[in-house]
Amino acid sequence: MTPAELEAALRAVGAARYHDKHAFHRLLHAGELSRGQVQAWALNRYVYQAHIPIKDAALVARCPDRDLRRAWRSRLADHDGDDKREGGIARWLRMTAALGLDEAEVTSMRAALPGTLFAVEAYVRFVSERTLLEAVASSLTELFAPKIIAERVEGMLANYDFVDKEALAYFTPRLTEAPQDSAFALDYCQRHADTPEKQRQVIGALEFKCGVLWSMLDALQAAYVAPGVIPPGAFVPAP
Amino acid sequence: MTPAELEAALRAVGAARYHDKHAFHRLLHAGELSRGQVQAWALNRYVYQAHIPIKDAALVARCPDRDLRRAWRSRLADHDGDDKREGGIARWLRMTAALGLDEAEVTSMRAALPGTLFAVEAYVRFVSERTLLEAVASSLTELFAPKIIAERVEGMLANYDFVDKEALAYFTPRLTEAPQDSAFALDYCQRHADTPEKQRQVIGALEFKCGVLWSMLDALQAAYVAPGVIPPGAFVPAP
Repeated sequence: MTPAELEAALRAVGAARYHDKHAFHRLLHAGELSRGQVQAWALNRYVYQAHIPIKDAALVARCPDRDLRRAWRSRLADHDGDDKREGGIARWLRMTAALGLDEAEVTSMRAALPGTLFAVEAYVRFVSERTLLEAVASSLTELFAPKIIAERVEGMLANYDFVDKEALAYFTPRLTEAPQDSAFALDYCQRHADTPEKQRQVIGALEFKCGVLWSMLDALQAAYVAPGVIPPGAFVPAP
Repeated sequence: MTPAELEAALRAVGAARYHDKHAFHRLLHAGELSRGQVQAWALNRYVYQAHIPIKDAALVARCPDRDLRRAWRSRLADHDGDDKREGGIARWLRMTAALGLDEAEVTSMRAALPGTLFAVEAYVRFVSERTLLEAVASSLTELFAPKIIAERVEGMLANYDFVDKEALAYFTPRLTEAPQDSAFALDYCQRHADTPEKQRQVIGALEFKCGVLWSMLDALQAAYVAPGVIPPGAFVPAP
């Protein structure tokens, strides 16, 4: 494949498998969830958010290329913050607070679904253990993030009276960060996937990552929508 | 031990085991090495420098504490650089260039001594696998860095006509970075080593790290001073 063909193949993976196609996301954006179900989504998704800088540091820790380390380090700042910016994790906690969740319960991650924890753990392990190229490629779901973020913010603001713009502040910086990051990662993959095998690995890494995000929504759907059986120990919305 | 007693115990480890006591360092600072021997030191020490951001990212990657991750991230910037600063690795390469070494040979690390590679690998593994407290504590050799740097810069400038201030530019920022970093790490260890067992772990981690630095000089001493038998494949100074 040429670099352009590889990009097209990657975009086809997103078109087929990105979690904007998941039933739970359609419910979330369409305003068809209760406040408790939205809380469950935000609490579980926190586990993912909290592990993003950990998986990004894992990538930096195995990267012999100083330029790649430098570029990738900006993702740590985006999520952990720095002296000037609070960072994505703190912004996510502002959303969970606005939704009425206790911060200690959220950050303990004890009430998260097993399916959430396993998916996030699999993602961190993938980035730590697969080839560096696959680790980079697994971030490429960000290619599809701006569209889902736009839908989510618009849908949630329009459809839930318990959600306001301030609660969704997490997403605003992501609209500029994600495209920068995904452009960098796509270019890296196009330059380094110089054999059919490596191109298959890049596509496989994106498929894997779509599976991570998808399975997190499967777990939410099963526990909180249908059949709606909450696993013992997991978050129970107030009646 | 009180926090002050723990600090005293740690400083005693440094007084006994830090590599400023090693015969090779005395030779280096006293001007008793040839240009080739100084080259061998700089080329081998590059392996250590090149792995510092990797071990620091490994620490960040296993750290659930956002504040600690943020603080520790500054070490990545110190060594890998950012948009404004070239970083410690690039400065080290300016020194190896000033000493007449080929950059590709240095960065390939192929001519480094096995003892160097094993010691650095052991350090990265230690930070990746021991407790987070031990990983932090293993950085505490920086408590003793300003003294050795001052001796080194003064001694090398006075005693070698092939070394100038520009070649030693690596060390100047370290005189401010190392004390900030070691003050943070010492405070962290004093706050978190709240049992005798953890205090023993902290001391053991510093002993381990002193052993890493010491063994690197043992390898240099054996290969390039006495008996002076260079292992096959390792750097051979020009005659």
